[in-house]
Amino acid sequence: MDPERNLKLTIAYEGTDFEGWQYQPQKRTVQGVIQAAIREITKQGHTIVGAGRTDAGVHAIGQVANFKTTFHIALENLKRALNSLLPKDVYVRDIVEVPLEFHARYSAKAKVYEYRILQRKEPDVFMRRYVWHVFHNLRPEFLRRCLECLIGEHDFSSFSASGSSVKTFVRKMYDASLAVNGDMFVLRFKANGFLRHMVRNIVGTIIQLDVKGKDVDELVKIMEKKDRKAAGITAPPQGLYLVEVIY
Amino acid sequence: MDPERNLKLTIAYEGTDFEGWQYQPQKRTVQGVIQAAIREITKQGHTIVGAGRTDAGVHAIGQVANFKTTFHIALENLKRALNSLLPKDVYVRDIVEVPLEFHARYSAKAKVYEYRILQRKEPDVFMRRYVWHVFHNLRPEFLRRCLECLIGEHDFSSFSASGSSVKTFVRKMYDASLAVNGDMFVLRFKANGFLRHMVRNIVGTIIQLDVKGKDVDELVKIMEKKDRKAAGITAPPQGLYLVEVIY
Repeated sequence: MDPERNLKLTIAYEGTDFEGWQYQPQKRTVQGVIQAAIREITKQGHTIVGAGRTDAGVHAIGQVANFKTTFHIALENLKRALNSLLPKDVYVRDIVEVPLEFHARYSAKAKVYEYRILQRKEPDVFMRRYVWHVFHNLRPEFLRRCLECLIGEHDFSSFSASGSSVKTFVRKMYDASLAVNGDMFVLRFKANGFLRHMVRNIVGTIIQLDVKGKDVDELVKIMEKKDRKAAGITAPPQGLYLVEVIY
Repeated sequence: MDPERNLKLTIAYEGTDFEGWQYQPQKRTVQGVIQAAIREITKQGHTIVGAGRTDAGVHAIGQVANFKTTFHIALENLKRALNSLLPKDVYVRDIVEVPLEFHARYSAKAKVYEYRILQRKEPDVFMRRYVWHVFHNLRPEFLRRCLECLIGEHDFSSFSASGSSVKTFVRKMYDASLAVNGDMFVLRFKANGFLRHMVRNIVGTIIQLDVKGKDVDELVKIMEKKDRKAAGITAPPQGLYLVEVIY
């Protein structure tokens, strides 16, 4: 038997046809299809650990996962074998060996998420799976001022999915910015961690504030209330991308 | 009863989940879902005429169709009603009244098709429905010289789907060009008409010639043979877009 190796996978997937990342029996999940492919190759059961448990419909460009195995195979061949078995909406971009103590979730120092909005009157049939279509005119400067308020260490309770049980709702937002390219609005968030639905609740809230013509003060008040009910809607999942996990 | 009006629709659709444009009983076709939506609004059966009968998996940005009706409705309202009934992968961009003699297919002077290729080593999970992924390095200059050979009036028999029964295989190609943007190769064709599978057979053939390192002479020889068997593969449908119909 080979010595145990710890393998780190970088994974892209289109979340549309998945019920999220996390394994659930009888459901099509990203973790589930990857574990099934690994089982087919190794003839052994392995549990992979993902850095972020993305929800149904949420995409990933750079999800990271790891698993430990004694199965003997060159990593290039494992990558090729996995991708030939995986469905077309998941792709393993990279596999490298990492120290045994590496843990995709606990070792993560920061994550980057993007939220993509198509801001125009008419929908786009080719982008409906990849953006939130907003037909109101948005004010980039207002959105940028909102995003600036989020930078730093804050209690993000107001933007956490209701019923979340975590030790603390404090997260450190390293960066929150907006890039506008024609009718595409891309909001980018980098933090040491994200609460469940946090990005979607932030985006839904600031877009609602914008549409209602509110001022940035409103966002500050919402954050101070530390109450999910103070914030706005949850933006739909198809605009959200896990872009990068930083270790 | 209102006087008869002839209505011209400009339509976008993602072809992935359709069995092509043309109505077929029991099958999900673009013509079928649009006619069903019109029936729901007007409570009358209407047959719409499409400019191009795109195949399964082929997309449209600017398909054109027309139908005659005595049903009384403002065109803005008809557009809104249709789009609210249509599935998300079809969108009616515009409806205008045109003279009664207008016929979406017979009145067309020219059509523009685009074929989109993603040329890189790794596939892209977000683009798999919208491009042909080619991992060989392509030579833009070679492809451009091939495309130039196609411009003008030619017998395109070699690129027609086998078994096609048309009066003539001669078509006039007004323009055939390549735009390269990073790893996206977009081939654009404008002609007075296109034979069945013509763009996909042209693209499949010149990409094969490129991959095999052939010279442009080969393409000329293939065209001169006026035989489908002389040409190469049919490029897959998901790279093809009906962009515009010109009247």
